[in-house]
Amino acid sequence: MTEIPNSHPRYESLMARERIVKGVKEGLTSLQGMIAQGRGEAFDYLLGERTTPSANAATKAAAAMLLLAKRPAISVNGNVAALVPAGMVELAKTFNAPLEVNLFHRTEERVAKIAALLRSLGAPLVLGERPDQHIPGLEHSRAFATRGGIFDADVVLIPLEDGDRCEALVKMEKKVVAIDLNPLSRTSRMATVTIVDNIARAVPNLVFSAAELSKSRPEYWRSLLREYDNNVILRQTADEILNHLNSQFSQQFSNTQNIFMQREH
Amino acid sequence: MTEIPNSHPRYESLMARERIVKGVKEGLTSLQGMIAQGRGEAFDYLLGERTTPSANAATKAAAAMLLLAKRPAISVNGNVAALVPAGMVELAKTFNAPLEVNLFHRTEERVAKIAALLRSLGAPLVLGERPDQHIPGLEHSRAFATRGGIFDADVVLIPLEDGDRCEALVKMEKKVVAIDLNPLSRTSRMATVTIVDNIARAVPNLVFSAAELSKSRPEYWRSLLREYDNNVILRQTADEILNHLNSQFSQQFSNTQNIFMQREH
Repeated sequence: MTEIPNSHPRYESLMARERIVKGVKEGLTSLQGMIAQGRGEAFDYLLGERTTPSANAATKAAAAMLLLAKRPAISVNGNVAALVPAGMVELAKTFNAPLEVNLFHRTEERVAKIAALLRSLGAPLVLGERPDQHIPGLEHSRAFATRGGIFDADVVLIPLEDGDRCEALVKMEKKVVAIDLNPLSRTSRMATVTIVDNIARAVPNLVFSAAELSKSRPEYWRSLLREYDNNVILRQTADEILNHLNSQFSQQFSNTQNIFMQREH
Repeated sequence: MTEIPNSHPRYESLMARERIVKGVKEGLTSLQGMIAQGRGEAFDYLLGERTTPSANAATKAAAAMLLLAKRPAISVNGNVAALVPAGMVELAKTFNAPLEVNLFHRTEERVAKIAALLRSLGAPLVLGERPDQHIPGLEHSRAFATRGGIFDADVVLIPLEDGDRCEALVKMEKKVVAIDLNPLSRTSRMATVTIVDNIARAVPNLVFSAAELSKSRPEYWRSLLREYDNNVILRQTADEILNHLNSQFSQQFSNTQNIFMQREH
């Protein structure tokens, strides 16, 4: 990896970028995954590179939904494997859920490498190498799914997922928890619970929320979900972005008028 | 390239992405360039993937500045070479300016490939293969510049440039025209004229503006520049982004309240 001083103001963002470059070089991540990472960087920048109050609320609801699931499953793609592999293993243990490798640009070699990485980090059950089912409405290898994993799960966690796949899972009447930095993406709008946050912050936050909720009873988890409205939360995220951008722009260009005046003299 | 139907609502954006992937595969573009492309996609999305009124004003000022230049020069990096190589040659002819290959992650092989591509498209003068000067304040190969090109230019056009290099050129008292999709980037804030627009739209627009301005006299070009204030233009771009986002969010979540009400019953 390129050396980055941890005093750098954008250290976390630059480290994430290096992890993706390393993922591509190691054959975990597709070239297209780098463009997705770049888009994510820009959207995170709009959020102020922080977990917003709406993201916290969504994360808490997601933890409740995953704790209440009968057959949860967690999807892992090439960017997720490059960015937070250990975190995904921790989530799998927290929610007693299989990890299923699920690639947009599927190659058997990449699936095998990602599965091996997750196992080396202690994942109890990794699926995706021998899919035995198809998700209706998706084409070719993008439809692949595994019985005992995503295919017959009641709740699926899909970090950094494509809109088509998210929509197809929702049509199967699954509850879908998405992690996505763009509140306007199809994935964000289709999911049952959308965490609009950087995956590097969302995953530990989800583990933490599950630990906190475990201190209370399932009745409380159910009440959280009854009160939760994903559209209200996304609207709140939109406001958080607008407010942040507005303050950034105001700060940057506050002396615009003065500069303009000075030029007149 | 992957087949993309030109009826696709985001055809231009997807084609640009394919051009960058092709650029990486052909050795024109660095892996890191793909992340930059992804960031650009996200910022273009915020602009509404259109040339805004402020971008048009900046483009006109940029054309005037380049027409008035005594020794203009145009910088070309790996993303620019992948995205708009023919457009850069057209700009070189329009403004009678050399193209100088100038890479953030410099390798001699990439410089040679980009120079060969530009020459094959008819570029009259391509520099950058044998830099003979250093730009003060930059490290190692990032400081390389060529006499007769960027090093002693009075006006430099830098599309998709890094903030450090932009700042170093401004410190050399050059006039700098930047093309950059992030109005808050250091490049945008440091440049003399910043065109906040997608390079695929900005380059033909700049050629068109130069042709239009050529019908009037240099006195008019100078008056355009006297009236131009880059900070005012950037603030206007910021407002255009906020207005666009606000309308997108409102459109998307307009029925939020209704949905919320329905859930209460």
